[in-house]
This record gives sequence, structure tokens and C-alpha cells, in this order.
Amino acid sequence: MNKCVRSMPEPGASIDLSSLSSQPIIVEAVRPQVDDGRFAVKRAAGDSLRVEATIFAEGHDALAAVLKLRPAGAGDDGWREVPMVLVNHGLALWRGEMALEDMGRYEYTIEAWRDAWTSWVNEVSKKHEAGQDVELELAEGRALAQRAMALSHGDDSQYLKTVLKGFDTDRESAARLPLMVSEDLAAVMARWPDRSEATAYDRILPLQVEPPRARFAAWYEMFPRSQGTEPGRWGTFEDCIRRLPEVRAMGFDVLYFVPIHPIGVTHRKGRNNSLMAGRDDPGSPYAIGGAEGGHMAIHPDLGTLEDFERLVRTANHMGMEVALDLAIQCSPDHPWVRDHPDWFTFRPDGTIKYAENPPKKYQDIVNVEFFGPHQYDLWRELRDTLEFWIGHGVTIFRVDNPHTKPVPFWEWVIRDIKDRHPYVQFLSEAFTRPPMMKMLAKIGFTQSYSYFTWRNSKQEITEYLTELTQTECVEYMLPNFFTNTPDILPEYLQRGGRPAFMIRAILAATLSSVYGIYNGFELCENDAIPGKEEYNNSEKYQFKVWDWDRPGHIKDLIAALNHIRVDNPALWRFDTLRFYDCDNDDVIFYGKMTEARDNIILVACMTNPFDPAHVWMEFPLEAMGIPEDQAFEVDELLSGERHLWTGRWHHYYLDPAENPAAIFRVIPWRPVDYHAPCL
Amino acid sequence: MNKCVRSMPEPGASIDLSSLSSQPIIVEAVRPQVDDGRFAVKRAAGDSLRVEATIFAEGHDALAAVLKLRPAGAGDDGWREVPMVLVNHGLALWRGEMALEDMGRYEYTIEAWRDAWTSWVNEVSKKHEAGQDVELELAEGRALAQRAMALSHGDDSQYLKTVLKGFDTDRESAARLPLMVSEDLAAVMARWPDRSEATAYDRILPLQVEPPRARFAAWYEMFPRSQGTEPGRWGTFEDCIRRLPEVRAMGFDVLYFVPIHPIGVTHRKGRNNSLMAGRDDPGSPYAIGGAEGGHMAIHPDLGTLEDFERLVRTANHMGMEVALDLAIQCSPDHPWVRDHPDWFTFRPDGTIKYAENPPKKYQDIVNVEFFGPHQYDLWRELRDTLEFWIGHGVTIFRVDNPHTKPVPFWEWVIRDIKDRHPYVQFLSEAFTRPPMMKMLAKIGFTQSYSYFTWRNSKQEITEYLTELTQTECVEYMLPNFFTNTPDILPEYLQRGGRPAFMIRAILAATLSSVYGIYNGFELCENDAIPGKEEYNNSEKYQFKVWDWDRPGHIKDLIAALNHIRVDNPALWRFDTLRFYDCDNDDVIFYGKMTEARDNIILVACMTNPFDPAHVWMEFPLEAMGIPEDQAFEVDELLSGERHLWTGRWHHYYLDPAENPAAIFRVIPWRPVDYHAPCL
Repeated sequence: MNKCVRSMPEPGASIDLSSLSSQPIIVEAVRPQVDDGRFAVKRAAGDSLRVEATIFAEGHDALAAVLKLRPAGAGDDGWREVPMVLVNHGLALWRGEMALEDMGRYEYTIEAWRDAWTSWVNEVSKKHEAGQDVELELAEGRALAQRAMALSHGDDSQYLKTVLKGFDTDRESAARLPLMVSEDLAAVMARWPDRSEATAYDRILPLQVEPPRARFAAWYEMFPRSQGTEPGRWGTFEDCIRRLPEVRAMGFDVLYFVPIHPIGVTHRKGRNNSLMAGRDDPGSPYAIGGAEGGHMAIHPDLGTLEDFERLVRTANHMGMEVALDLAIQCSPDHPWVRDHPDWFTFRPDGTIKYAENPPKKYQDIVNVEFFGPHQYDLWRELRDTLEFWIGHGVTIFRVDNPHTKPVPFWEWVIRDIKDRHPYVQFLSEAFTRPPMMKMLAKIGFTQSYSYFTWRNSKQEITEYLTELTQTECVEYMLPNFFTNTPDILPEYLQRGGRPAFMIRAILAATLSSVYGIYNGFELCENDAIPGKEEYNNSEKYQFKVWDWDRPGHIKDLIAALNHIRVDNPALWRFDTLRFYDCDNDDVIFYGKMTEARDNIILVACMTNPFDPAHVWMEFPLEAMGIPEDQAFEVDELLSGERHLWTGRWHHYYLDPAENPAAIFRVIPWRPVDYHAPCL
Repeated sequence: MNKCVRSMPEPGASIDLSSLSSQPIIVEAVRPQVDDGRFAVKRAAGDSLRVEATIFAEGHDALAAVLKLRPAGAGDDGWREVPMVLVNHGLALWRGEMALEDMGRYEYTIEAWRDAWTSWVNEVSKKHEAGQDVELELAEGRALAQRAMALSHGDDSQYLKTVLKGFDTDRESAARLPLMVSEDLAAVMARWPDRSEATAYDRILPLQVEPPRARFAAWYEMFPRSQGTEPGRWGTFEDCIRRLPEVRAMGFDVLYFVPIHPIGVTHRKGRNNSLMAGRDDPGSPYAIGGAEGGHMAIHPDLGTLEDFERLVRTANHMGMEVALDLAIQCSPDHPWVRDHPDWFTFRPDGTIKYAENPPKKYQDIVNVEFFGPHQYDLWRELRDTLEFWIGHGVTIFRVDNPHTKPVPFWEWVIRDIKDRHPYVQFLSEAFTRPPMMKMLAKIGFTQSYSYFTWRNSKQEITEYLTELTQTECVEYMLPNFFTNTPDILPEYLQRGGRPAFMIRAILAATLSSVYGIYNGFELCENDAIPGKEEYNNSEKYQFKVWDWDRPGHIKDLIAALNHIRVDNPALWRFDTLRFYDCDNDDVIFYGKMTEARDNIILVACMTNPFDPAHVWMEFPLEAMGIPEDQAFEVDELLSGERHLWTGRWHHYYLDPAENPAAIFRVIPWRPVDYHAPCL
């Protein structure tokens, strides 16, 4: 096989002539790919992988190319192939597509060769049409057919034999030409190309096929200890189980628990993050580890491991998966501090440095040292921790602050886990600078928290979502749009009242195919510490008992949204999001549609939570495939209203208190031609 | 040295923990680079190389980075370094810049490390400001200073010794802190970083530093045989020498000759490409090779090799370089056909296939076979041909149809030649699909013909030039804007009259920093074969005697343009081109300025060669650094008119017959503050 022009020579060196390939074809600009193939492109099982490439060579020879896919490490026998098609001659643009059925790691690449037969047919046909003699060309074509016969098997071999016999018998070129340029013969010749001089693209590109829920899911985050009913007492896994029907009724399919492990007592934080904990304060669940155990243990007041397994099982039976927090940090009382002091960094005075972001101090937490003398023991222990919880039913890990841990650790541990458990997901909580957020997505995190939580205006949302869906990052980053988190009660929700909660729920659920809320959101909880984004009396530091049916909740809206999402395949994807024109700066108009355009969803959503708005929207007729003069049905899915509209611009009235958004399903009414017989 | 995160692991494999680097820093998105470093970035001697990269690591450590540059193949000792600077914290964007003095091949890369001292200063300062005790931190800082002392030499070593002594003598942290966080100490510490755990970017990126004329030159193409004065007779090199003062007076600095070699007689083409040559027809100079020799010979009617050398020498003395055509094709009478039949492809009837593009035939030309049994002998012969002409003073090769020859051949031969002669240039005449045109620029062609010749309207020019200057291709492709060629007399010139010639000259000379005309353009020659882009009675197939002063010529305009180009450094670059707003669709308004903004050129040029136009132009005040209320002088360089203008929008009147364009030099009048003393 020839090497691709791209694969040679070394930039710094002179070129050794004998190292050059014969007749290489240029295969370049292969997309999708992430950073020249260093990182995997992400798809979900059930998706297809569509690959485009620029493929050309010197001169005018016709080319042929295939897209090749195999499970990672499967060897040369493992390739599956599909032909690529030239879709734009001027740009030398080729395209191939393959269905992705199973989860796991894959590799894909491209192979191209000179299609001597097609070149010959082109040449001989043009010359014949111009009235030129083609006797010599026919002899050349015969030689090509003969070579294909030598490569071929079975029926094709027999067919070629017959063709060649006919060719040799009939000596008139007028008769032999049609025989040689027939489409039947071309089809047979295409099956037996001479690929001995084929060129391989210089990269084998990685692909990660994720579970379908990586791309389409609704998350519900909860503090298990706050699911109880008795003030000042730990809620238990039993309490969590009692809440499952309600959470499922709202339409969520991932149940995410903050850490459930024992909590340290040394420097335990009190209510509202105070330095001194009261006698009965439970401490932050992120100060992991105490006398009762560390990352593989369960806080005894929540229940037993068996209780946890029962909770997971019940959730699974109801169609929900369980996500667990992975926070790699320790209370000073964590067993690792005693058993593995070499996993920590000691200061000149012999103490372990606690977590800090000067001048802020987190005295209840110490960090492990990822590059210490026995670093790989630590790394393996962390891997084993993940294995432990997978063994008890956890399929998703939400990772706390991954950007403060080394990137190579994440790449190793995620790949190690997913090679055995390809269905396991990792959600990166990297609220940090964009390059690190993206890097963590590249090296393997299934999903990422995003800046959605702080993008409120029409311009902010349009710009940010355009970046997420229209740039390379759509190939590797699946954002999970959380409306709020235990650490983030955005000002928009603090000040915007119930309409703000409705708006943010609608935006999260329809802009992204994966989104989540942290419990209390459905109750429009907006009690913040003044001047901060933090919850007042946060359940991070104290017990809480919620009234899950308190007046003003928006559970019905959330349930409706989640059902609309499930019913409409257009909302199962993120990358198809497009923004459309409307005449009101307080309203965003956007949509998604399936590739076959058999499900079209358009959303007009307010961003101003206070003032009602009239809006004129421009429906994207071309994208929807609807002629200017053809009627289409518009079902508003939240209200059930129906319209029959024609043309581009349409009006709607939105009121933050009542209907801050309209979710339109567009159904073209196909014209029927009564001149044709009924079927 | 640590490996970069990007350099590991293999996409398909599991990760071996022991293969991982300790504490890697992420260095990515290094730009400029072409196709992940496969191809060289191009600069000209005298330019600088500005490199940007995204550099970050987990956590909050301060980082340091250097840009490294060395001559290709110079080894580890050859690196020069400059520090990179963090220019955008949120995007983790770093920048470094290095001057490029000499032509040749270079390599550059980046190295980054954790800047422990800066991290320490940040931490201890914040804590001290917050009133926290820093005794422990001071002990940690002392250890860092001690390590630096061990690495340091000379004065710095002495300085650090003194600092440490002062630190140990003075036991009060109030006194020791200022000592340790001083800027002097920081400067010394920055000179002796511990780079043992530094991370190298995973690529060493190639850079080609071209001769200055690669980026700024005006070309004049001629048929030497048409420079004579006697109809039906070969013009000679002597005639060419006689024309040099005139060409130089027009301001050209590259003199480009179509092939000067012997021409075959077999199937020689006659006038206007007719199949039968008349007895005295000279044949196409592209049908190279005859009884008198091949690619290393000179057509005897032009003169001798000594005459040629004299022509080159005279041109050089006048400040012009000589470019020769390299057309790799043969007349059937070429000596190679006899001496090296294995360099050609024979058909079943024993004949060599002549060049064709079915149904078109080029019976006077046969092509060599680049992948034949003795292909490398052929490749070396071609290399030796280039060496031969370089030996006789040629410094530039204009390559005919490079896109029909293998890309690896070009990459090899260009690199081979330029490794010995870095001042030699290759111009690619690849009038073909964009990917091939760009690929030839990537693999080493210094300059490229472009589609400029066919881009006439405001929209066409704006779109095409934006692609050339604002996308990655600006890093490797230097377009040479030819207004016409012996094969291309564009319809715009055929129909637009003298104003069309003026307009295309102005556009070529000011849009691109490298441009060229083919002789006759300055005479507004527009005699075409009806319905074609070809010249009627083309000098490709017959003798021609020109009247170089015939009425209606635009030699004065061309001379003015070339002098304006030389006088204004803004026009020496291509990548700085930007388009600005004007209110007339028949006028393009664009400009270039030096980085220091001490030379600002704005051009308003008509595209409609017929109708006069009023135009309002928006001067780019922000880009020019001129406040809204500050006056600026505007010198129109073609007419000599001067204006003093203020504000954004200005009016001009353009008339195709008189002044189809205005070339403004903008000179800000700096306000003088009379409250300050005179200097």
C-alpha cells in the first residue's frame, strides 16, 4: 500500500528518493477529526459516522475511495468498508457514511486508488464521440479487463471471461465498444479494482461510540440526606426510593447523587460554610472520608450498601440510571491519610496542605498528590473505586473539579474503565477556562458542564450555542445544560421569579439534548446569600426537608418538557440546532429537525422574564423543505393549540407568566395531485 | 523533558501508566502551522515569526514558556529561544515572536514549564495581604531560591547567595517577605528556572524563509523571440537586452522568459494552433527539444549560452532577476526520447502516447512517465536541469502545469534545490482545482498563480481575496496576480477597453504584493480568437514584432504603480489586506497598513470599466488609530491631489477613462499639546 503524501517526509530532513511511494493519491482534510486525530470523535450508538475528505491526484485519472471502520485494535482483518462518493468535483470532496451499532472505541480511515477502468471508459467514450479511432484504446481496455479477471472470483470471474471472449471473437470495434463501456461491465470491474497501488490516509482516526443516553437524557440532582421528612435528621436511601416515582413522573432518566460517603469531623464546616460546625451539623458531603471509611464506603446514616443497591435497582426498573459524584479529595480523617501518607504533600512543618485558593481556605479538605512517589498506586486505587461503584450499579460518574487534576490521569482512567464498561459515562464539572473545559471533553469525558448556566440574553445564547454546535467542538463535546447546581443559583433565577425558572427549563431542555436540574429548581427556590450566587442555608452544610409540592412549583411544565423531548426525535440531537430570525430582541427563535425532516421543532422562547412580547418569526421554509405557497400545520406543544400557516413570517404573543415560550411542531401538508391515481 | 499531552497515547491502544509523563503541560493550537505541521509555514527574510499557542495545566500554577527556533536539522544545540508572554488569561493564549534574518529551512517549537517562583510569589503575597501568617510559605520560598542558586552561574549565583544570607540572618518575616517578593529577585529567578520537568510541544514545526522578492515583486513576461524588430525573424537575446531599460523603467524586477530551448519539428503546430505548420513557422516554444538539444540547450536562433548569460547579467545589474519557464514535456524529437525511451509510456502499437485531454490532442508534445522503471534517473535529470540554469544565473523557475506531475516529485526537487540555493523561487502555474493549487503551495512552491485573472466583480474579488488573506492559506500560499498570460486574455480585457487594462493593473498591483503582466498588456492588446480566451495570432505559434510605444499604451500608469509600490511599505505585504465599506457596488475600497501604522494605503478602485461613479467611502478610523475628530492628510498618489479630511465618510468621483482608481496615502496630523514644552 502506498503512503499518503501527508505522511512523508520528515519536516526537517532532506528527502530520500527511495523512500517515496509510487503514484500516491492525496487524501487530506478528513473530517470529522479532532486535533489531527489525536483525540476521538464522539458519536452515540445508533448514530452514523459521516466522513468527508478531499481526495485528488495529479492529472486526470478517475479515483475510487473507501471509508474503513474497525473496533479499536482489531487488526487488519477487522476493517469494514463502504465506498465513498465524489460529491463535489471542483473541491475534490468525497463522502462516505457508516452506521454505528455498538458502543466502544473504534478507528476509521480512508483508502483511495486510481480507478483505471473508469478513466479508460471516460477516455474511450470521449474519443469515440469525437469520431476518433479507438482501436488502440480498445486493446488497452482489454488488458484492464484481463487484469480484473485475474483478481476476480465466482460469477464475476465467469462474466469477465465471457466478455473477453466476445471481445476477441468480434473483430469490429463498432461492436466491441458498446460491450466494453456497458454499465454491467463497469459494475463488475468496480468490484475487482487493482488496489496494489492504493494509498492509505496517513492517520487512523479514533472514534468513541457512547451510550445513547450520553446524547439524550434529563438529569435530576439530589442530596440523598435531604430527601427525608424529619427536620434535623438524615434522609436515607429509603427516602430516596420513596421519591423515585415523583422524579420519574417529571420525566427524568438520570438520578444524580452528591457524594454519599462518610464525612470527616476535623475542621468540619458548619451552616452556610461557617468555620465551626455545630454539634449536629452534618458537614459538607465533599469532605470525604472518616472513621467509617473513604471513597468506597457509604455514610452509615444514609443506609447500607444493600440499601444503595436496592435504590439503584428500583431506579433502573423505573427506567432511570444512577450517577454518583466523584470528588477526588479527602477530609483529614480519610483512611488514605493514615494508610498512604505518600499520596499527600507535606509542608516544612510536617502538616498536609489543605485545599486553598488564596486567600480562600478549605480547611476540611486535603488534596491528593497525583505526581507523588507512589502515584500509580493512587491512580489505581481511584480506578478501583470507580470499578467498585460500577459493581454496585452506578453507570455514570459526575466528576467534581476535574480541571484541578492531571489530564493524563483522566485520559488513562476513563479509557481503562470504558474498555471494560463502554456504557459508563463521565460528566466533567470543569467550570474553568474554555481550553481546559474542551481538553477534558477531548480526552474522554462523555459530557461536560458548560457556561449555559450564565448565558441569559439572546445574543449570549446565540453566540455560545453557535460555538458549541457549529465549530469543531461539536465533534467531541456533549454539553449537559444544568439550570443550577448546589454551588450556583444564577442571578437570573434569583431575580426573575417563577417565569425565569420556566424560561431556563425550556431553554435547557430544548437547546441541548442533555440537561439537568438540581433539586429545588422545580420549586423555584431562589433564596440566595445576598450578593453571591450561593444558596442561603445550602444543603451542602445542613439538613434540609423540602415540601416537594409547595405552591408555585413548575413540576408540570418540567414533565411536559420531558415528554415533548421524548416524543420528538428532533430534540434527541444537539448538533442540529440552528437559530432563525425573529424581530424581538427579547425572544430567541431556534429549531432542530431530523435529517429526513419528518420531525421539525421550532422554539420561540423569551429571555426577558418580566415583559410580555409580540414577536414575528421567520420560519425557515428552505430548511424545512416547504414551498413558499404551501400550507403547514403548526402544533404548539405546550398549549395544544394548532394553526394552519402559509409563508415565511408569523406572529405570536408570549407572556412570561403564562407562556414564556412556544414549542412548535411543524407538519407540512403535502399537496396531493388528483391527476394521479389513488394508491 | 516531558512529553506533551498531545503526543500520547496511541489512539487505538490502552494506556500503559508507566509511559505517561510526569506533570505535563498542555501546549496546543500552535499557530501558524499548516496541516498539523506536515507542511512549512512561509515567511520572507526580514519578516518576523509570531507564534501563538494555548498553554495551560491543571490547577493554578503559574507557567512559563519559550518559542524555540533553529535551522532545519541543526540539532539540540541549534535552538534560539525567546520567552512567550501570556496575552489572554481566559483563553490561556501565549505569544512569542522572533526575527527571521536569513533564507532557508527552519524549525520551531514551544517548551513550557511550571514557574514555581511566580506561583509562590502570587500565593505568599495574597496571603500576606489577607493578614495570614506566611512563616511556612517563607520556608518554602527559601527552598526554591536555594534550588535556583544550585542551577545558576556568575553574578546571579552571587546575588542569590546574598539574598539567602540576608534571609537567614534576618529572622523577622516582616523583613524577609519584601526581600523575597522583590522584582529584582524575580528577574534573577526567571533566568534560572528548573526545566527538568518542562514539557515539549509534540511537534517540531517547519518554516521556510523565502527571499524577500518572493513576497514583493513585479513580473514582466516576454517571448524573447518577439523582442526583435524584423518581421518573420527570430528576436534574439541581444534584442532582449535592448529592451531591458524600458522594462526596468516601468518598474519591473522580475523578467520571465517562456521556454528558450530548441523546438521540435515533428507535428509542429502552425499559426493559431493549426495542425500543419508553415515552412517558416517557429512552432510552440513548449514543444521542447530537437536535434539541437533539449531542456539544457538554447534555441540557436536566440543566441548562445554566453548571450543568455550576458542578458541575465545585464538584467541583474539593473536590479532585475531572470525567471525561466520549466515545462516538463517533450517534442517527439527531444533527445530523451532517443536516449531514455524508458522515461516514456508506449502504447500497444509501440508509439509514445502524445499529450491529450480528450478529445483535444497535443500532437507536438509527449509526456514523460514519472513512475516508470527508471523514474529516479528522470527525476535526477530534471533536478540537474534546474541546477544547470541556476549555474547560468537563473534564480526563478515558473513551472508549467505542475498539477499534472506528481506532488512528491515537486516536494523532492524543490527541497533538494533550495537546500543548496535558498534564494531560488518556484512559481506554480496550477490553474486547476483549489485543493491541488493549495497542495503545490504547501509542498514547496514559493508562489502560485491564482484565480485572480478571472475575478472581476466587487463580490468576486472581496470573497476570493478574503479567502486568500484571512484563512490558513495565507500561511503557505503567496499568490502572484497575473493580469494575463499567453494562454489567457480574459473577457474583461477583451471587452473593457483601455480602462479595463488600467483597472486590472491597479487591482493586481495593490491587492497583491506580487503581480505580473505578460507583454502586450501594457499596450492594451485585446485581439482575441472570437468566443475564446486565447490571443488571436498568438506569439506562441508565430513571430511577432511589437510597437512598444503604440498609441493608447498604459506604460506610464504601470510605472507609476510600481513606484508607488516601492515607496509604500504597506504594499510590500499581502496578508494585511482588508476590505472596507463603500456605498457603490461598482467600486471596491480596501487598504493595507504597516504594523506600526506609519504607512497607510487605501485604494478605491472601479470594477465597472464603462460608467463613471460617485462613491462614499468609510475610512477605517479605528484601524488607522485616528480619533473621530482628528484631521488626517490624504494624498492621492496617482494624481498628486491632497486633502485634509476629518471623520469617517468621504466622497470621491471616479471616471474609468481618466482615473478609474484612487490610491490614498493617509497621514494622521498628530495634535500637538502646546502646554508641553517644545523639544
